[in-house]
Amino acid sequence: MKRLTAWLPELPILTWGKRYNKDLLTGDAIAAVIVTIMLIPQSLAYAMLAGLPPQAGIYASILPLVAYALFGSSNVLAVGPVAVASLMTASAIGQFAAAGSPDYWQAAIVLAFLSGGILLLLGLLRLGFFANFLSHPVISGFISASGLIIAASQVKHILGVKAEGENFFSLLASLATQAGHSHAATLAIGIGAIAFLFWTRKGLKPLLITWGVPARTADIIAKIGPVAAIAVTSLLVWSLGLDKAGVKVVGAVPQGLPPLTVPQWNPELWQALLVPAALISVVGFVESVSVGQTLAAKRRERIEPDQELVALGASNVAAAMTGGFPVTGGFARSVVNFDAGAQTPAAGVFTAVGLTLASLLLTPALYYLPQATLAATIIVAVLSLVDFSILKRTWAYSRLDFASVIGTLGATLLFGVEAGLLIGVSMSLAFFLYRTSKPHVAVVGWVPGTEHFRNIERHRVVTSPSVLGLRVDENLYFANARFLEDCINNAIATRPELKHVVLLCSAVNSIDASALESLENIEHQLRTAGISLHLSEVKGPVMDRLKGTAFLQHLSGKVYLTHFQAIGELAPELIKSEAEQKCATSGNACVRG
Amino acid sequence: MKRLTAWLPELPILTWGKRYNKDLLTGDAIAAVIVTIMLIPQSLAYAMLAGLPPQAGIYASILPLVAYALFGSSNVLAVGPVAVASLMTASAIGQFAAAGSPDYWQAAIVLAFLSGGILLLLGLLRLGFFANFLSHPVISGFISASGLIIAASQVKHILGVKAEGENFFSLLASLATQAGHSHAATLAIGIGAIAFLFWTRKGLKPLLITWGVPARTADIIAKIGPVAAIAVTSLLVWSLGLDKAGVKVVGAVPQGLPPLTVPQWNPELWQALLVPAALISVVGFVESVSVGQTLAAKRRERIEPDQELVALGASNVAAAMTGGFPVTGGFARSVVNFDAGAQTPAAGVFTAVGLTLASLLLTPALYYLPQATLAATIIVAVLSLVDFSILKRTWAYSRLDFASVIGTLGATLLFGVEAGLLIGVSMSLAFFLYRTSKPHVAVVGWVPGTEHFRNIERHRVVTSPSVLGLRVDENLYFANARFLEDCINNAIATRPELKHVVLLCSAVNSIDASALESLENIEHQLRTAGISLHLSEVKGPVMDRLKGTAFLQHLSGKVYLTHFQAIGELAPELIKSEAEQKCATSGNACVRG
Repeated sequence: MKRLTAWLPELPILTWGKRYNKDLLTGDAIAAVIVTIMLIPQSLAYAMLAGLPPQAGIYASILPLVAYALFGSSNVLAVGPVAVASLMTASAIGQFAAAGSPDYWQAAIVLAFLSGGILLLLGLLRLGFFANFLSHPVISGFISASGLIIAASQVKHILGVKAEGENFFSLLASLATQAGHSHAATLAIGIGAIAFLFWTRKGLKPLLITWGVPARTADIIAKIGPVAAIAVTSLLVWSLGLDKAGVKVVGAVPQGLPPLTVPQWNPELWQALLVPAALISVVGFVESVSVGQTLAAKRRERIEPDQELVALGASNVAAAMTGGFPVTGGFARSVVNFDAGAQTPAAGVFTAVGLTLASLLLTPALYYLPQATLAATIIVAVLSLVDFSILKRTWAYSRLDFASVIGTLGATLLFGVEAGLLIGVSMSLAFFLYRTSKPHVAVVGWVPGTEHFRNIERHRVVTSPSVLGLRVDENLYFANARFLEDCINNAIATRPELKHVVLLCSAVNSIDASALESLENIEHQLRTAGISLHLSEVKGPVMDRLKGTAFLQHLSGKVYLTHFQAIGELAPELIKSEAEQKCATSGNACVRG
Repeated sequence: MKRLTAWLPELPILTWGKRYNKDLLTGDAIAAVIVTIMLIPQSLAYAMLAGLPPQAGIYASILPLVAYALFGSSNVLAVGPVAVASLMTASAIGQFAAAGSPDYWQAAIVLAFLSGGILLLLGLLRLGFFANFLSHPVISGFISASGLIIAASQVKHILGVKAEGENFFSLLASLATQAGHSHAATLAIGIGAIAFLFWTRKGLKPLLITWGVPARTADIIAKIGPVAAIAVTSLLVWSLGLDKAGVKVVGAVPQGLPPLTVPQWNPELWQALLVPAALISVVGFVESVSVGQTLAAKRRERIEPDQELVALGASNVAAAMTGGFPVTGGFARSVVNFDAGAQTPAAGVFTAVGLTLASLLLTPALYYLPQATLAATIIVAVLSLVDFSILKRTWAYSRLDFASVIGTLGATLLFGVEAGLLIGVSMSLAFFLYRTSKPHVAVVGWVPGTEHFRNIERHRVVTSPSVLGLRVDENLYFANARFLEDCINNAIATRPELKHVVLLCSAVNSIDASALESLENIEHQLRTAGISLHLSEVKGPVMDRLKGTAFLQHLSGKVYLTHFQAIGELAPELIKSEAEQKCATSGNACVRG
């Protein structure tokens, strides 16, 4: 009980709940109405993408929103099915059951439950840093590839054909083969819907503004364009009887509240879905947090990443309990929520109420909705995910980061979402280790007349044959520990007169146990070769750690506060002769230390 | 042809071959005789550990030595079967065939070939940095756990019982159950051999020195103690007919040259052995390079890690071609080679000749050699690998490094060598990301009367409510990119008067593409909140990279050479009022800038 009360005060709802009033209520309610209208087509579409019946999409947008409102730290984040997580869901459970079968839906529920459990665990243990494994290049490559895969997966609904492929390229090939057998009416609806949706995005808003509609309202109207597409194409199908002519429609969607579901206990399935669930969780969390942070900063608010893990975890558990599938914070819906003026997470609760009403009353109206319209909605939505500008930017900035983008993109298109993501993460880690494994190490010399030491290759400096000064421009840790050993071994092999090595540590922020071992090896190797090792300009926190270690106790040399002191003591002749020279040229009397 | 000639001059043999003379020959030959004597029992023992017939150990010590002599860069490294690689071999191929069967030996040959191929590939592509994935804590934990597992696996030969276990602990349990059924004569030989071998290590050398034997010679004599143990126990078994009384002996070992073998083409087996081969390669390489570096440094020589990869790769391919199994540079034999005065890799060639003679002539003498003696040799050798002092040292130095040791040790004992190593590597990477994911970020303020800025929590400094100075003590890269966003979001959420944020970058050695994206996000978020972002004291190489990026072009603020300049321009009242105060107290006339 003590722990519960200790934890409760952190619940964001207790903060915003206290100050809730009529003004906030009005803002939240208006936003909820707009988001509800937008979410109906989106939920149906993403359920189709995930291979689930359309109502699953609506179910996944009700209780999860309430759960997020209870635990979330963002005032505007809207939780529900999103494109990438839906694709990952289809990819994960497609191996175990046929899309559309009850087993398939059961597996989706298990996946949501596992994903929720993982997020809750990470949040309660405050392990949000795990999301850091995903670098921006990896995420960019992965999201673009996912957008392409999703768009390609929907083209068959536009063409009215059957097409399948092991990966993106074989799917394209299959589509190319099938294109000749396209169903004319379906194609007409699909292409028409795509064209209309692109126009609502690009052309409608300027038009509304010229009509005198305020910019913000125009933006919101443009964003709910898919609803018009759904209404018009549904009416077309109904009035012309196109469903009997072969245009595939959504069909009967059960009316009513979301069902109460329990994830089925099946150890093999759970084990097999564990890795996919972890990947969906991390990708969803990263997406959600970046949306939340961007929007929060606009109002000088802030979100709490570890709290977001808990909230997303609760949302996914809620999805698993009500016939849904993995959910996360979506970009488009959160932006609409923000623009429509949502003030607190209560807007999410009102949206949930709206969607419950839709689920109770509106589903019969969806009977004649063509699948091609939903496919068009998805295609237009996901093409904005595909962004190749990152390629140009990373190429200019860093070739290793460029390689991470290309590698993740290619691996995802070739091997699918899970393998692609894992390959991308492995690559970025390998590249990072590679980048830091060979740090910049400069041999430094004295800049005469100053207390400064600079790279001998870039500056005019003087050095002593018996003292070697090395500056390492990187933290010392396991990835570069052996490199430093190599460096110093090379240096001593070519300098027969060497008596002292001084490591200038001004750019070393940390030294881990591996690097400490390497320093001990270096010290030992130098000692057997008759050379002493010294350190200079060691940072405070690094020195705190080194104190009391065997390395420092047995160090053959000393630790100097400044490199100038080190050289003054180890190679006094260098400074002295220079000082004499300086005296000779300046003509002043000299004091010798 | 051009590439071949471009590459050939790097072959170390072309350097030492030219200056080869009689003196070097004498040194190498003497060392070779001593190492040959030492290698006979060791080779037999490690073959037994790997689950192979004894002659496989001798075969693996002949052609690989010649291959290393051709390509290796160390003058003293002795290549052959070693304890940990033998254990890993047994673990990898034990899943596919029964120890002792022809299939088992075939799999060992495939494993050596794959391991050789991987090493060659890494060497030719200069990818030696991959070995950096293994941090010292992971290696220490892994080697200690391997030592314990190896020792435990040999106890059954000492007891003369059968015992098996899924992991270290179940093996111990099985041994405890079986101990009651020990075979008395076998136990007597085993315990006697262990006691004798420990005595040759600890007691013999001082004794020889008191007898007037030079320390170095005494050391070498002590190191070849196992030969005496083998001779005495073999004679015992032969003279007392103990083999008929149930003491297990090596039995008939075929006489002759190593056979020419070719790795069998079996795609499934190859695929299954790929990961184990990669792990054996990396562990073997790390072990070998650290031995080579330690010994080379003693004579102010150096080794070339990428060349070592090629040499070890060639050695393993050679092992695969002559009925051997995975080999690497061994610690004990290399030290003996060094101490005995080996001057060039030719010593290895002479050792190979010695072992060929042994294989041709000596094998009949091994018939009565008790397996218990070989087990004793192994146990005494591997117990020196077990070193728990790393636990104490890492506990004192860094808890995360300590956790890496314990995690690797525990995982290896529980789940075996492959899983243990992979878990250890994953843990150390996760810990590293964790460590750098939350870098030290200090809010800095001005030290009045100077140009210095210090942490406001540690020093008496002055700050302005409209300007926030932040110093980040870490490289900015994907693992901490989002942390910086959090940091700044938190900072602006609590400072309503804030107009400027200045990032003091003196401790930032690099910024990767992820961090650049985050900086862009931060800039954007600050801009929407009406705050400008500035940078100060950016290092040269970092600035070179940032030049030309969209981030710098669209930066709302400026890049200042020094933080003092930044504050002087952004919060002149701070410096001015302080200057006035100073004037007032000092009574001097003031010049205002």
